[in-house]
Amino acid sequence: MNQQIRVAIAGYGNLGRGVEAALAQNPDMQLVGVFSRRDPASVTLLDSSTPVYAMADIEQYQDKVDVMILCGGSRSDLPEQGPYLAKFFNTVDSFDTHAKVPEYYAALDQSARDAGRVALLSVGWDPGMFSLNRLLGEAILPAGETYTFWGKGLSQGHSDAVRRVPGVKSGVQYTLPSEEAIARVRSGERPELTTREKHKRECYVVLEEGADEDTVRDSIVSMPNYFADFDTTVNFIDQETFNKEHSSMPHGGFVIRSGNTGAANTQTMEFSLALGSNPEFTASVLVAYARAVHRLARLNDIGAKTVFDIAPGLLSPKSPAQLRKELL
Amino acid sequence: MNQQIRVAIAGYGNLGRGVEAALAQNPDMQLVGVFSRRDPASVTLLDSSTPVYAMADIEQYQDKVDVMILCGGSRSDLPEQGPYLAKFFNTVDSFDTHAKVPEYYAALDQSARDAGRVALLSVGWDPGMFSLNRLLGEAILPAGETYTFWGKGLSQGHSDAVRRVPGVKSGVQYTLPSEEAIARVRSGERPELTTREKHKRECYVVLEEGADEDTVRDSIVSMPNYFADFDTTVNFIDQETFNKEHSSMPHGGFVIRSGNTGAANTQTMEFSLALGSNPEFTASVLVAYARAVHRLARLNDIGAKTVFDIAPGLLSPKSPAQLRKELL
Repeated sequence: MNQQIRVAIAGYGNLGRGVEAALAQNPDMQLVGVFSRRDPASVTLLDSSTPVYAMADIEQYQDKVDVMILCGGSRSDLPEQGPYLAKFFNTVDSFDTHAKVPEYYAALDQSARDAGRVALLSVGWDPGMFSLNRLLGEAILPAGETYTFWGKGLSQGHSDAVRRVPGVKSGVQYTLPSEEAIARVRSGERPELTTREKHKRECYVVLEEGADEDTVRDSIVSMPNYFADFDTTVNFIDQETFNKEHSSMPHGGFVIRSGNTGAANTQTMEFSLALGSNPEFTASVLVAYARAVHRLARLNDIGAKTVFDIAPGLLSPKSPAQLRKELL
Repeated sequence: MNQQIRVAIAGYGNLGRGVEAALAQNPDMQLVGVFSRRDPASVTLLDSSTPVYAMADIEQYQDKVDVMILCGGSRSDLPEQGPYLAKFFNTVDSFDTHAKVPEYYAALDQSARDAGRVALLSVGWDPGMFSLNRLLGEAILPAGETYTFWGKGLSQGHSDAVRRVPGVKSGVQYTLPSEEAIARVRSGERPELTTREKHKRECYVVLEEGADEDTVRDSIVSMPNYFADFDTTVNFIDQETFNKEHSSMPHGGFVIRSGNTGAANTQTMEFSLALGSNPEFTASVLVAYARAVHRLARLNDIGAKTVFDIAPGLLSPKSPAQLRKELL
């Protein structure tokens, strides 16, 4: 086997843990270390033989790492860490604040170009795989409409809102795509749909002792901004069921392009994900794209990149000839 | 607007007609001519203002065409035309004989490199979009299985077999994916399935006068190689219904990757197509990739290519900055 790609992780939460697990599924890559802002002695990895280092010492490792996978959050971590770490490493991250992509791209590009590095941003499923499918749909079927639906997925912000309602002991909220809306889109009808019309909300709640179901339900479904304008259902369950059935982080969704060609033929392209674990899937996408980053760096194709810039063959450990023979 | 990309079509059957229609949906491209082996005077285009030329004169147009879209068949046309036309033009084709891809690639690559041209092969939906999704599934979820289902789609070979049965006046055969098999795959079960277990066959037949339904049905469903080992249904209809409902060329299918990450989380990626017209969709994919071929040629990135080598951003008329802002 060729030499393994030396990968490191910056930030060890759910996403970092997912990257550690995904790397173990890819024998052409090797995890050389995890960087954390916490005391390294307090960080417990899935595999205890991998070293944990202090984030403050990260610059010392620039010659020991081929690709650094950034697993911090988009709100406060990545806007700082991305441009800083791109001075020392080839990087890949899952920056997902859609509105701030142009600004973040510019900062990363400057930093990566100055240092002769590759910095791949916004990798995961949305942005990421969903972006790729939005592009393919629009490029192949220019006369058409694109629809993105999210769910079934756990929404952190809405779950927090449920838990703030008096009488709620434990609560989660799932966003679900509307079956009716999906059926209309798949039919080729090309309806105009708002985000609200495309989704509904489902809550699972454990009541505090003595709390009243109807009062709690009314408080939730009438909550402005969060629930009032959606089709919302509230299910009451006991704590044991809650712990057993609502502790994973499922997510997923659909990108559907509905278009027409020729005189009036309807054509539909659809990409969908059903994810048992949202952070582990995002991590798996990051790891496949880390392989592409390493290859671009060896070709000296430097600067900031997105999934739109990556030829798909670069994601696979197989050779171009093998890909043509086995997968084309 | 920048100068339009000058495109020509070599071969004018269903696929060539689809390319003509698709080009009309892409204002950054211009159809400069159609080349046919038939007498040009006998070829009627959708838009009669576009010139039709004799295939024999095609070499004379090498400076007037940026990308030649090859619309011949994979069995006898493309193995000859591809390497020959790559000497004079940047080309894109829909070569779909999976087993002969390595051989065809080698011939095209030699020819295109010698001439400093780009030759993109096997573009369409399978090979093409389905290949891309097989690669993405395997690269992102290395611990998993990939399933390709075809249909609902018209099968030319099986329709011919139905029509050879005595007593059949008109007949078509559709291949359908098995709903049960798809449900098992989506569940994350990862069953082992043969092509036969994944598909069923549906026939629509108009009887000749005096022919017997049961005799014809038995002859069809027991036909070795074609139907005997499949779940086959035969529907008898009248000629008027046949003409009205069975003259288009629908097709489609699914590529599903079922994998797991972490300890035991199931992850499913699914890409599907529901096509009102098979040749028109293939044509639309060819046209989007013709744009990428033109861009690669301008970058002097020559030789034979497949969809695995094409960065997705090259397919869109939008600029990289616009793509990041609007679609990421």
